[in-house]
Amino acid sequence: MQWTEVLATRNTRMKASEIRELLKLLDQPDIISFAGGIPDPALFPVQAFRDAFAEALADGQAAAALQYSVSEGYRPLRDWIAEEMGKIGIPCGADNILITSGSQQALDYLGKLMLSPNDTALVGWPTYLGALGAFNAYEPRYDRLDPLGNRSADSFAEAAAAAGGRVKFAYLSVDFANPTGETLARAAREAVLDLAEQLDIAVIEDAAYQTLRFDGEAIPPILALEIARKGNIEACRTLYCGSFSKSLAPGLRVGWICGAKEVISRLVLMKQAADLHSATTNQIVTEKVARAGFDAHVAKLREVYSARRDHMLAALAREMPDGVRWTQPEGGMFVWLTLPEGMDAADLLARSLATERVAFVPGRAFFADGSNGNTLRLSFSCADEAAIDEGIKRLGRLLR
Amino acid sequence: MQWTEVLATRNTRMKASEIRELLKLLDQPDIISFAGGIPDPALFPVQAFRDAFAEALADGQAAAALQYSVSEGYRPLRDWIAEEMGKIGIPCGADNILITSGSQQALDYLGKLMLSPNDTALVGWPTYLGALGAFNAYEPRYDRLDPLGNRSADSFAEAAAAAGGRVKFAYLSVDFANPTGETLARAAREAVLDLAEQLDIAVIEDAAYQTLRFDGEAIPPILALEIARKGNIEACRTLYCGSFSKSLAPGLRVGWICGAKEVISRLVLMKQAADLHSATTNQIVTEKVARAGFDAHVAKLREVYSARRDHMLAALAREMPDGVRWTQPEGGMFVWLTLPEGMDAADLLARSLATERVAFVPGRAFFADGSNGNTLRLSFSCADEAAIDEGIKRLGRLLR
Repeated sequence: MQWTEVLATRNTRMKASEIRELLKLLDQPDIISFAGGIPDPALFPVQAFRDAFAEALADGQAAAALQYSVSEGYRPLRDWIAEEMGKIGIPCGADNILITSGSQQALDYLGKLMLSPNDTALVGWPTYLGALGAFNAYEPRYDRLDPLGNRSADSFAEAAAAAGGRVKFAYLSVDFANPTGETLARAAREAVLDLAEQLDIAVIEDAAYQTLRFDGEAIPPILALEIARKGNIEACRTLYCGSFSKSLAPGLRVGWICGAKEVISRLVLMKQAADLHSATTNQIVTEKVARAGFDAHVAKLREVYSARRDHMLAALAREMPDGVRWTQPEGGMFVWLTLPEGMDAADLLARSLATERVAFVPGRAFFADGSNGNTLRLSFSCADEAAIDEGIKRLGRLLR
Repeated sequence: MQWTEVLATRNTRMKASEIRELLKLLDQPDIISFAGGIPDPALFPVQAFRDAFAEALADGQAAAALQYSVSEGYRPLRDWIAEEMGKIGIPCGADNILITSGSQQALDYLGKLMLSPNDTALVGWPTYLGALGAFNAYEPRYDRLDPLGNRSADSFAEAAAAAGGRVKFAYLSVDFANPTGETLARAAREAVLDLAEQLDIAVIEDAAYQTLRFDGEAIPPILALEIARKGNIEACRTLYCGSFSKSLAPGLRVGWICGAKEVISRLVLMKQAADLHSATTNQIVTEKVARAGFDAHVAKLREVYSARRDHMLAALAREMPDGVRWTQPEGGMFVWLTLPEGMDAADLLARSLATERVAFVPGRAFFADGSNGNTLRLSFSCADEAAIDEGIKRLGRLLR
């Protein structure tokens, strides 16, 4: 069988995530890894999940918890999420929420909703590589979103038309973004909305890390800023993607999209055709755990992760040679390093694994054009203070 | 915002499933419903699931159960499935298995893997409407698969080329298919393989109901017949889609694809990009429940469902007027009725809900061309004997 003969063209762009392939190699106990970017499992609210599963499977509840359910998602969970969205400046109802299997699925569905081959997606330079992976299946072209860069809307539209499509959306993560850890200033958020208005495109706001702010002042989400302009969510072009993966636990695969009903109802049909619905049990359990103690749990996460961030920033200041720069994240899980021009972080990783046994993610994969080989991502979410001290010291040695 | 301006063309073909829309209307307690086609929740192995969740979340286990996991799926579950596949003539290993979020997701991924717009998918006439829904997102054309119909491979290929694409696969469910309840004879299975060889296309074998055989002799799956021809699974073009939704419980969304490693490895990349992985907890729990007592549980399901099938067939024989024909399923959940030419089952349903209060699914939605309005699907899976007697009596009255 010649499988290549029956493949759709979209599959030519699917390739293994460097990060996930790398993670498979990191089982060796002597490696200090800043590569993962996953939540620390020691912080999962295990007892709360145990209680919630037991309750969901109690007599009288179990049949519904194990049965098929509606494509839009479990109503009490959508209600809880809508309440939370209201608290961050996004008044909405359950009909504005679609439950997805993690926010990765949200990105896949939004690409599927909007991208025809050769359409243009505006993305950060760098951006979340999982977003590029999800969108790639729909064969887009990428152009660089630089909110305060003063490039005209016309020039984006013209470049998209020349490539045989149309600009469909701008994708960005505004708070403690993966991979940079940086937060987009309010003026830049407003500028993204201005550009989207001029181009008449959607905005995909990836809020995966939003609850993990350690310090600094919270800036309203883009969707909140747009609602402030337009009066209500139904008139808005911003689609907000949330996730419980970083706040409660990723293994249950529960995330959501929040937006205008007109879009959500189309996405419900898409989900019905693609996987019927996200796991019923997982949605019920997530609602119970969230309602019982979301804020208290997230406060605890912030405390632990922010101490690790502090520790990593102090170690970097101590150990990095001149010419290396890094970001100062106000939350999330990542610090982004820029090495001197001409250095290649992929080469550095190979040397590091061979000699110093420290792992990180080379930055090139986060750029749609594979540029900026002199960057790398460090995650502080799973490393204890001793590992941070030792790992950053080794990295400094490598760079000297 | 003009959302229609940013939609990909594929979305024009997504529409609400008639069945799922209908199900929303069936909450009224006085309606006797043969519409659903879902497993009877009273038969879920609730205690086994309770025990399995408690075990998966025990100290020392919980962190892994709630964490991210690999895209291909939980290894012990893939091992268990591979063992089971071996028992039905499909010797394979864990690398031949991808875990999906239900077999609906398997159909979505296989459409995404193979279909470019205007490609042709060969499907039954009728076929599972959820398969049409999943494939529609990739904008195929459909042609009628009639295994013993003697149409030449060339004529399929020519029609596909004339439509601007290529035949990519044949999709079919061979055992107690949804919606007809019919089983494909061995000669017809071999004929599908012959046609697929001539066209050099894939075969998608949907085995959602396969474990639910009540009587008659088991016929090897198409993938087993192909392995018998070729010696091993790596040389095979058949992709087998399995599911725990009908055997254990659908709410956890666990299914699988079994096929050549070359295809599975591509699908793993697709899954990584689309939703990272199916829920970790659900896979762990499914493996525990399956390993502890899959065969005993399925034996119990067969006993209950087969009694309901017998009861429904007896009621149909008693109540249906001349000119109505129906299938004689050897397993599964469905009986398929053909009404006299010229009758329309959608009109009948409207009258039925208004007067006799019996629900079923009109057959038209199961035909890619919307033909055969004089057919309908009855499910016996959730109806007790009294409801079957009364419901079929009312249906007979309507048809007289």
